[in-house]
Amino acid sequence: MEPLYRDEVSAAFEPVAGQLAQVEEMLMEAGRAPSPFLGEVAGHLTSAGGKRIRPAVTLLASRLGNSGDPKVIMAAAAIEITHMATLYHDDVIDEGDLRRGVPSANAKWGNTVAILAGDFLFARSSGLAAEVGGQVPRILADAIASVVEGQLLQLEADFDVSRDLDHYLRTISGKTAALFEAAARIGALLGGLDATAESAVASFGRSFGMAFQVADDLLDLTASEEELGKPPGSDLREGVYNLPVIWAIESRPGLTGLLGSTDVDVDEVRKIILETGAFDRARELASSHAQDALGHLMTVEQGEPREALENLTRLVVERIPDPRTAGGAAKRA
Amino acid sequence: MEPLYRDEVSAAFEPVAGQLAQVEEMLMEAGRAPSPFLGEVAGHLTSAGGKRIRPAVTLLASRLGNSGDPKVIMAAAAIEITHMATLYHDDVIDEGDLRRGVPSANAKWGNTVAILAGDFLFARSSGLAAEVGGQVPRILADAIASVVEGQLLQLEADFDVSRDLDHYLRTISGKTAALFEAAARIGALLGGLDATAESAVASFGRSFGMAFQVADDLLDLTASEEELGKPPGSDLREGVYNLPVIWAIESRPGLTGLLGSTDVDVDEVRKIILETGAFDRARELASSHAQDALGHLMTVEQGEPREALENLTRLVVERIPDPRTAGGAAKRA
Repeated sequence: MEPLYRDEVSAAFEPVAGQLAQVEEMLMEAGRAPSPFLGEVAGHLTSAGGKRIRPAVTLLASRLGNSGDPKVIMAAAAIEITHMATLYHDDVIDEGDLRRGVPSANAKWGNTVAILAGDFLFARSSGLAAEVGGQVPRILADAIASVVEGQLLQLEADFDVSRDLDHYLRTISGKTAALFEAAARIGALLGGLDATAESAVASFGRSFGMAFQVADDLLDLTASEEELGKPPGSDLREGVYNLPVIWAIESRPGLTGLLGSTDVDVDEVRKIILETGAFDRARELASSHAQDALGHLMTVEQGEPREALENLTRLVVERIPDPRTAGGAAKRA
Repeated sequence: MEPLYRDEVSAAFEPVAGQLAQVEEMLMEAGRAPSPFLGEVAGHLTSAGGKRIRPAVTLLASRLGNSGDPKVIMAAAAIEITHMATLYHDDVIDEGDLRRGVPSANAKWGNTVAILAGDFLFARSSGLAAEVGGQVPRILADAIASVVEGQLLQLEADFDVSRDLDHYLRTISGKTAALFEAAARIGALLGGLDATAESAVASFGRSFGMAFQVADDLLDLTASEEELGKPPGSDLREGVYNLPVIWAIESRPGLTGLLGSTDVDVDEVRKIILETGAFDRARELASSHAQDALGHLMTVEQGEPREALENLTRLVVERIPDPRTAGGAAKRA
């Protein structure tokens, strides 16, 4: 959720803006290291910004309850640092050159340094989670294990044109939804919600995460480099065949002839995805997960925090541009 | 401390042999994952064996006290899993092909898989540390941060013939001694030692770790491939100029002409290291750290666990073969 909808997202964060500023300070702090070089590398992504959507979910979820534990700032920071650690390693794996509009750590300092900086951030996030205590370290550790599972599933399917819906859903459930679920659950716990509400909020996080990733995969096909902070069509070139591709192949098996290598005509594939209706179907799936997310929130107390989470959920789907009518790469092509 | 002195080390572990078997089961358990592939990769190093010297230090340290917390098994497993996680990433960084006598994970499945398997093991170790609770997750997280610092320091000095003693000591203090210190401190804490004894045992761990790494760096020059589980002279070829090299350059600056690239005449460099007395000086430094380690133990209660730690400390130095008279690569050359 990079530059697109930045203002609308900020508006949704309004109820926790002050706390998010504290999280930001903690992120800066966590990047500090005895060696200035490590500090520079580990702080690189923090300085590049990012929407901080995961910590915002944690903070908003904690506001749903009454017992505001001040440690929620630390917990929210731990979630975002975990996310950043995975980004460092992701970029090594994908050989990504750009991240959040700036050169990725691997492109700037090499793979080795990026691996170690990711490890350092993992250590920092577990350190923070340990300070929060209670169930938080375990929830976070389990989420990281799921993220890795999801990333490995994705790798298994690299350049595999026979990847199916089930495989895709298992992948994003691990690599993305698990951390959003953890973010929401940890917020609920620290907000003092009862077990039923905690479970509903965790389910909200999971559905939100699913919607978020399906939307993200659509954005890779339609948004501009400026909007994405990296070149569009990256997934296609890296052999990651996401939902719209999977569904487009179902309707038009000949599409596989255009895939299977790094040398891919992104515009042509995008055209077929649109023609077959796979783009719209995928957007509907994102919508449906967003609806599930909103449904889970129905059981918790109404008020500003819940409204903010609802707005955020709607934005996830609204930010998917219509490639037929609006900006983005399709129009430019 | 691979095959060399295996029997002697096992004898030192005797007082905690039963607990070490439980740790081993927990290591197997931790490698299990919902995806069979991840399970295979994450379990790869566990199956390859290893001396389990870090968990043994934790278990023995806990025996120095009276209140045997059963969670010490979990804590010891967390330490070893952390160590294994760093090995997966190390092998990616060093492009190592062999580890513990079997193909390394990166050689077998590629860098990406090895990075993710390391991340998974980090998650597992924090999960276990979280279950142990108390100060353990923080101590472990801090140790991981130090390990990363040390690894980065080492990278900074890659192929740098002007590396000095101070840089070397800071490197090994981070990459090796920090985790041994954590292993010992965590054992002491779970054994219920008082603050003074805990601090002495932690210092023991640190000095032990320093001796261990200096010895390990000497072994890389003198032991055989069979003994090391990987080719000897690897550090020289990878541009990691350790203590004996640093000191040999001091006495014979011309040695730098033989260094600075991957194409290095290991036998010739080894010969010069021996001639200049740098090998013996480095062995003396290992001895001196081992003496410090023994000194720290003097303040804790005498008995079987302390004796076992003392024996282990002596073995660290004794296992360094004399390259003039005994086996190893120098003789074969």
